[in-house]
Order: sequence, then structure tokens, then C-alpha cells
Amino acid sequence: MDRRSFIKNAGVASAGAAASTVLAAPAIAQTNPKITWRLTSSFPKSLDTIFGGAEDVAARVAAATDGNFTIQTFAAGEIVPGLQAADAVSAGTVEMCHTCSYYYVGKDPTFAIGTAIPFGLNARLTNSWFYNGNGNTLLNEFYAKHNLYGMISGNTGAQMGGWFRKEINTVDDIKGVKMRIAGLAGKVIEKLGGVPQQIAGGDIYPALEKGTIDAAEWVGPYDDHKLGFYKVAKYYYYPAFWEGGPVIHSFVNLDKWNDLPKGYQAILQDACSFANTNMMAKYDSKNPTAIKQLVGEGTILRPFSQEILEACYNAALEVYAEISATNADFKKIYEDQVAFKREGYLWMQLSEYTFDTFMMIQQRNGKL
Amino acid sequence: MDRRSFIKNAGVASAGAAASTVLAAPAIAQTNPKITWRLTSSFPKSLDTIFGGAEDVAARVAAATDGNFTIQTFAAGEIVPGLQAADAVSAGTVEMCHTCSYYYVGKDPTFAIGTAIPFGLNARLTNSWFYNGNGNTLLNEFYAKHNLYGMISGNTGAQMGGWFRKEINTVDDIKGVKMRIAGLAGKVIEKLGGVPQQIAGGDIYPALEKGTIDAAEWVGPYDDHKLGFYKVAKYYYYPAFWEGGPVIHSFVNLDKWNDLPKGYQAILQDACSFANTNMMAKYDSKNPTAIKQLVGEGTILRPFSQEILEACYNAALEVYAEISATNADFKKIYEDQVAFKREGYLWMQLSEYTFDTFMMIQQRNGKL
Repeated sequence: MDRRSFIKNAGVASAGAAASTVLAAPAIAQTNPKITWRLTSSFPKSLDTIFGGAEDVAARVAAATDGNFTIQTFAAGEIVPGLQAADAVSAGTVEMCHTCSYYYVGKDPTFAIGTAIPFGLNARLTNSWFYNGNGNTLLNEFYAKHNLYGMISGNTGAQMGGWFRKEINTVDDIKGVKMRIAGLAGKVIEKLGGVPQQIAGGDIYPALEKGTIDAAEWVGPYDDHKLGFYKVAKYYYYPAFWEGGPVIHSFVNLDKWNDLPKGYQAILQDACSFANTNMMAKYDSKNPTAIKQLVGEGTILRPFSQEILEACYNAALEVYAEISATNADFKKIYEDQVAFKREGYLWMQLSEYTFDTFMMIQQRNGKL
Repeated sequence: MDRRSFIKNAGVASAGAAASTVLAAPAIAQTNPKITWRLTSSFPKSLDTIFGGAEDVAARVAAATDGNFTIQTFAAGEIVPGLQAADAVSAGTVEMCHTCSYYYVGKDPTFAIGTAIPFGLNARLTNSWFYNGNGNTLLNEFYAKHNLYGMISGNTGAQMGGWFRKEINTVDDIKGVKMRIAGLAGKVIEKLGGVPQQIAGGDIYPALEKGTIDAAEWVGPYDDHKLGFYKVAKYYYYPAFWEGGPVIHSFVNLDKWNDLPKGYQAILQDACSFANTNMMAKYDSKNPTAIKQLVGEGTILRPFSQEILEACYNAALEVYAEISATNADFKKIYEDQVAFKREGYLWMQLSEYTFDTFMMIQQRNGKL
């Protein structure tokens, strides 16, 4: 534990803080020290859903500490580029970030599992694996190697498969398509002859407009409408088989985390938990209106064909086998998640699926 | 705001507390006063899932306040009977409870909407309606009339339809069946000739064993296995069309809530938010093993027939129309929820449903 850096960063008088750890100072003096942190987000401020997750964390922490623990939020590029947020936290340049773990697959593909991997868990099972399975423990063992402590702090639900200029009917149609796609899905697309690109959210539109890329996936109707993709690509495919329930993480520099008073750790964990649920809640309330707007503006909805889904599924299994052969961290965490997934989808197909199916039939028939 | 009762119940020295409200005392002195509350649960301690929600709330609040805000949890019947938890909070006998809003439909059917109504929202849409729709605001306006402040603090996901001694194949088979069933579902069952009973969780087994009732629904595999229903009834139906994503609420006496320091209010809200997600996470990780155990012990799984679901759906619409004709609170909140539901199920049938369907097919084919 690096006490010096805590004192420096915590913004409390050194003498007082030192005293509180050495002497038996009154409990109250230890409880609510004045601390100011900087959080860098991987997302643009215009996306109130996904950038809003960081704002939620900051707001809840401030409310719970009467403003004593302040987290300043910065959009992608303001102080750190969007896809380098976790690097900055790892290095201690900023205390905290709000980002997707899978942006860092270049360092280690194990990072992908923290967000979502192709044909992984839906949002409900993701929460369950993190909170009640081994997800949190296993991933934090891995993140610690990068000097990071992670807390799930947002979920988008199953995303849309993205925007294509041309129809994609067969596996052959994927060949040569340059597509912005995040995480390990890039490796799946590559196996089918596509050309994956990793581009931060705010930079996708110009790339698609200029024709640097042929296709792009981001999140879903609400965000995608804001980013304007419908203006430059007509076909909107679903589902993003690579993002059944992707997580947005808060990463804290591990030393800063360890130096944080226990009470503040608990407050920050619960703030992240609220942000996690609230982001999903926002998407579920905002996406319906947005999907209708998009269709109204000429967007054509298309499900990926079974042929494409199955080819991608098989390609994904190959990718996992290849990575597992040489990466022990990936293998261990992946296998734990697969075991959890098998059980989860057994259970969810009974009441949950039957209930939803009945309700969706009523919806389609105009009887809701 | 009843400052006296706050001081009495908060367990802080009256002089100090009074000073902190009257004088400009140091911020720190106001921030973390010593407070001890009692929480009465509607559930037995044996159910670590649903009783565990109250324990989660208490544990997170204690952690976030360095033990200064203590919530003592009591099982159903220890200090208050299970189905009277909210009454005790309303009267100020205890500060807080963890219960289902729909246990109080006898006072006002509007209470049902707080938990779940037949053919209502699934768990995801429930969270979305409460956090980002009008659910929290509208229901707290209603709860305030009963001197309660409510926070969602648990969800079970779509429940199982319950345990029947005899097969239920047609609508006619429901006639005369005495069934433990909670909330407004009782009124639906009644319309089809069934005889609903409201019985607290811990008291269902003896009633089913003795034959006082013919059928009973509780939650799902994990809890139902613990309560032993499979020993006295063979057929296990799904889904509970009356509980697509039922909420377990924390209710706080409204005066006590208003007297709580703002920081503690925020801490308690976030603790409830964590408990809400964590309960769902527990069920999703524990139900799979339990459903296999139950089947191994001879339980026979049966989906309700489409005929029964549709008859119940139509009966539910009649119930809502009847209540809405005379109850303005119900009408207002119900109509808001229906509008939200129509949008929600439009969106969820795209990516979410397609992704889950593909994954469930892999699960059934042993390919996950």
C-alpha cells in the first residue's frame, strides 16, 4: 500500500491523514476525508446512456459522502484518448476510468471476457456470473496483473449487429467487408474473410461516411441514432451475436483502490452497482422510441441469417480453442463462464422465455 | 417531519442530534450519526435468496457508513407477522421492512402494481420502468398516502407457475382448485372458478400437505425445493404469468425517511439497488441446479397450455378494467405501465430475443 500517493491524491492535509492511520484518531475523522478523483471515459458526452454511467457513479458517490468524495468525469479525448482509458488508470495518470474491458484485447485477449465475447452471456446472466458466479473474482485476479480493480458499471443488453451499406445474406457476403467491430468479434469476422477495425465511438461516423469502412456496429438504436449511422448505411442487422449483454467497467488504479478508506470502497461499489442497472434501464426505455424513429427514416431491419449465425458460432469456438491453447488466464476464465452459461440457458428457457414469448405475441397482435 | 421521533429512534444522544440540526455544527458531525433501525422481513431466514435481500441491504449500509448506520434484520414472525410487515412500518412500529407490495392488495389493489401484476413486465422492463420510466415516482406518490417510502430491493425473474396435485390441461380443470397465489392473480384465478388463498411463504407447505389447499405457487426451483413442495405435489407448471419479474420492496416509514440525513438516504438507496440486482443474480445462478434436482426427485414439468394462458390473459384485462373503473390511483399507474410495456416488448423482440433463442437452441442441442 503506497500511503504517500494516497495522501498526495486524496487531497487531505498530510498531517491529519497520517495521524489517522498512526494514532487512534476519532472514527469520524477517518470516515469522510476530502478526496477528488479524475475519471476518464471512453465515450463521448453526447451519449447520455453510456457516458451517463460515469456521471451516475460520480453523482451517487458525491451524494453518499455529502460531497466529500468527488469524482470529476471527462469525456473520451478530453484528457485521455477513448481507447487508452485503462492504460492511463493502470499507469496512475488518472485514478479511474469508465470503459469496455474488451478495448484492451491487444494487450491480452482475456480482457474481452470482462465485457462480452461472441455467443457469451446475456445481460441477466452476465450480472449473475459477476455477482454470484466467479466472474468478479476471476477477472479481478487478472486485472490485478495490470494494476487495475474492476467493477461492473453498465450494460447495454443485446446490441444490434450494426450498419451495412450492402445486404449480407450469406457467409460469402462477409468477405472483404471492412467493419468497425470491437473485442474478439473481430477475430471471428476475420475467420470469415472480413476485415475488422477497432475505432472509438466518436470516430466511427466519419470513417463510415468517407468509406474507410463498409460497416460498423456500435450499440443499439438510441446511441446509433445519435451518432447518425442511418444517414450513411441503410441495412441495420441484428443481433450482435458478439454482444449478448456487454459490460461497461469502472477500473480503478489498484494502489488507489487499496488506499481508499473501506467505507468509500463500499460506497463506490454500490454506486457502480446502481450505474450498472441504471444504464440498462435507460437503454430499455430509450431504444423503443429510437428504433421506430430509425425505421421512419428509412432504415431497413434485417436479422442475420441462421447460416451466418452458425458459421460465426463455429468460428468463435475455433477462436476460443486457439487462444486457450496458449493463454492460461483466458482458458481458466472462459471455461468457468461456459459452464455457467450452460446452466443459465437451461433455466432461462423455462419460465422466462415462455413468459416473454407470450407477451411478444400479444405485442405483435396489438393486444398489449 | 417529526424530529422528536427521529431522535428517539436514531439512538443518538438527543442533545448532540438536536444541536446538529439547530446550530451550524461541523459537517462531519452531521454526516455519520449513529443510527440503529429494525427491518422486518416477510420471508423466512431459510430462504437465503429472498431473505438475503434484506441482509444485503443491511450489510451494504453498514459497510458504507463504517458501521454507524445499523439495520437489524428480523425474519417473518420474529417481531411482525410476514404479511403485516408494511403495516408495522406504516405505523412506525419498525423503521423498515422487506416485503412484497402486492401482499397489501386487501387495502388497495394499487399495491399490486408495485410487485407484479398478471401479464405485466419482465425483470428487465421492471427495472427500466422503475428507474427510467415513471414507476418509482408514481408508486411513491401512492405509497406516501400510506406513510411509506419504497425502494426496489430484489427481483426473482419470471417465476414458476406452481405446484399442482393434479394436471391442469384445460380452463375447466382450474374450477374449484384451492390455490395459494399472491397479488391480483387471485382475482384472475377466481374469474376462472379457482379459489385463491394468500398465505406467507413459511406457512404454505403445511397447508399443501394437509390438503387445505390443492395447489401453491411460491417463487421458483431454488426456494421451492427448500420449502419441500415437491414432496406433496408432483406437477410443476410454468410460467407464473402473474409474475414476469416481481419486485421485492424495501419500505421505510415516510417520517423516518424524511428525517434521515441526505447522505444516509443515498447510501440506503444504493444498497437497495445492489440488493435488487444481487437477488436476481442469486436466483439465476441457483435455479439451474435446483430445477435439475427437482426433476431428479420426480417432479414433472408442465407448461400451461395456450388455452389457459389466453383465458387468464382475458380475465386479467377484465380485472384491470373493473378496478380502474373505481380506483383512480390504480388506473393512472396501470395505464402508465401498459404504455411502457408496449414499447418495451417491441424492442426486446429484436436483438435480445433473437440472441437468446439462438443460444437456447445451442443449449438444447448440447453445443454450448
